Amino acid sequence: MSNSKLDRRSFIKTAGLVTAGGAAATALATPAISQDMRELKMVTTWPKNLPGVGTGAQRLADRITAATEGKVTVKLFAAGELVPPLESFDAVSSGTADMYHGAEYYWQGKHKAFNFFTAVPMGMTANELDAWINFGGGQELWDELSAQFGVKGLMAGNTGVQMGGWFRNEINSMEDMKGLKIRMPGLGGEVLRQIGAAAVTLPGGEVYPAFQAGTIDATEWIGPWNDLAFGFYKIAKNYYWPGFHEPGSGLSCGINKGVWDSFSGAEQEIVAACCAKENNLMYSEYNAQNGAALDTLINKHGVNLKQFPDEVFKALSVSAEEVVNSVAEDDLGRRVLESFQASLGAVSGWGSIAEQAYLGARTKATM
Amino acid sequence: MSNSKLDRRSFIKTAGLVTAGGAAATALATPAISQDMRELKMVTTWPKNLPGVGTGAQRLADRITAATEGKVTVKLFAAGELVPPLESFDAVSSGTADMYHGAEYYWQGKHKAFNFFTAVPMGMTANELDAWINFGGGQELWDELSAQFGVKGLMAGNTGVQMGGWFRNEINSMEDMKGLKIRMPGLGGEVLRQIGAAAVTLPGGEVYPAFQAGTIDATEWIGPWNDLAFGFYKIAKNYYWPGFHEPGSGLSCGINKGVWDSFSGAEQEIVAACCAKENNLMYSEYNAQNGAALDTLINKHGVNLKQFPDEVFKALSVSAEEVVNSVAEDDLGRRVLESFQASLGAVSGWGSIAEQAYLGARTKATM
Repeated sequence: MSNSKLDRRSFIKTAGLVTAGGAAATALATPAISQDMRELKMVTTWPKNLPGVGTGAQRLADRITAATEGKVTVKLFAAGELVPPLESFDAVSSGTADMYHGAEYYWQGKHKAFNFFTAVPMGMTANELDAWINFGGGQELWDELSAQFGVKGLMAGNTGVQMGGWFRNEINSMEDMKGLKIRMPGLGGEVLRQIGAAAVTLPGGEVYPAFQAGTIDATEWIGPWNDLAFGFYKIAKNYYWPGFHEPGSGLSCGINKGVWDSFSGAEQEIVAACCAKENNLMYSEYNAQNGAALDTLINKHGVNLKQFPDEVFKALSVSAEEVVNSVAEDDLGRRVLESFQASLGAVSGWGSIAEQAYLGARTKATM
Repeated sequence: MSNSKLDRRSFIKTAGLVTAGGAAATALATPAISQDMRELKMVTTWPKNLPGVGTGAQRLADRITAATEGKVTVKLFAAGELVPPLESFDAVSSGTADMYHGAEYYWQGKHKAFNFFTAVPMGMTANELDAWINFGGGQELWDELSAQFGVKGLMAGNTGVQMGGWFRNEINSMEDMKGLKIRMPGLGGEVLRQIGAAAVTLPGGEVYPAFQAGTIDATEWIGPWNDLAFGFYKIAKNYYWPGFHEPGSGLSCGINKGVWDSFSGAEQEIVAACCAKENNLMYSEYNAQNGAALDTLINKHGVNLKQFPDEVFKALSVSAEEVVNSVAEDDLGRRVLESFQASLGAVSGWGSIAEQAYLGARTKATM
């Protein structure tokens, strides 16, 4: 925790006057205060109770409320209920809302470095991301970036590796990727464009109809649990792995910096611990639920699991490196990129003889 | 949280009279109470501030204290300071201490099923363990087991995959394992005995001198970070991967059931969130530190990384299955084993096309 009691007191005295280095105001988001109780508004980028990300955000809000005995009561607003989903960051930055649950790469229009705090193509898995954030300098860089907008970010969820997506036709070579209309937003989409595919961005609600109508040839979503609920298997049977675009999407809780600084030391500890618990819990929920959903997709719905050909994955990897490097648009961007890459190198080196090696050897030995 | 406010009130009224199904008393461990503040004793199985496990336990104690503003002040006692390390469970069960930080498999003398809540040979990785505990029925079975002793257990750390160990001589075939004196405690040691090696159990402090004197031919410890500090590279240069015996050792915080039930709902939420944060944090610390330590071992100390031959790993796997199955000694043991195996099957199936597949493909594509 970076704020001493003294800092907090002096903030409270001057609330409304303080600015935190950037454009955004850090005024308290006019929380309802009575007898030491206050209600904070948490906006999210997720549809109401979307399994995994949405239910996890609700669980986080409820946990903070329970752990503070309601002194910090968090009221959740699903996407669109208070502000449009992609305006969640601005809402918290300006104090319209007190906190958000979302994914940092949604704010890449503010600064491309936000991408690294969710996921980048061919980047970190959930465990690698946690190692970087907690012990590789990631949190400090994130704090520096978010402080420019009057926001404090904390890791609060992870979807794990996302699937490569649903394809109407088989992918057997690079030729099959050329011109293919694939729904994939963000940096992953840029990588696809570089290898000759036609990546398109569509909001969640428009993906299914576009796929059904043939406007797109393929789409990624999240993974078996969420994809099963969406029903993509009714349109296409080819389900490709592994995903290259989001190898472990970290989800975040962003808090208006003025609100964060107004918390007591104990409240900061509680909110941080509740976020970390959700980080751990949501990832384990995805792992548990994806296993069961995958079984249903294969055995009940006749889905064909297919692996991307090596040459396609190799091409995606080469172009991912270019795209990710291009994200470093200024000094802070370069420092984030360098820190990310150094941590990834060290942690993945260890992982290659640890978890990765163990899983490979276990699979081989038990076949 | 299983206890309503009413339950807690009625517990407090009858404190000292309540027993919780098993042999152990659930009396409050005479905490120091003044003005709503109390001090709880946390015993641990770790030497004072042993990097990773020991510093993590201290971090947990401090976090609970800070998050409750000292209403629950946790004072940590390192191994031997209050009770011998392996008596931590009994101390908490009987109320001599209020909580412990340790590894459940240390209590396998009470019930062999405790092994599953730390690690078993060829078993779950950290992520797989979290998925089972949180969403696969693991926590409920653990609660049932621990309640018999008046203890509530929560996951509060993980070392990740442990290394296969330090070997004086190379291992090129099964023949090289025969009669080899290897320091490996617990179920891993039993697996080694089944394939003809001579597994021995030695307390931490005796491992280095025994290895140096040639009393043992090989030893496992934890992983690069802890092993580097121990200096095993001065004795032997062959460092084998992957470890089969502890693919992700979950560490736990056990709380005297009477103490747990006396917590308010908010305090239970706080303690649970602080434990979950440590679970996430310690694992990411091991991943970050092992990467750096591995680099030092190889480039500064000339350590040779070596992979166990396939035939050795296969033999270890076959014997691990037998040893792990033999752990189911009664009805509860069988239910724990079945739940563990069902969860492992589903989650590892998903992992094989997700994290495991992604890591393999990333390695291949970036070579």
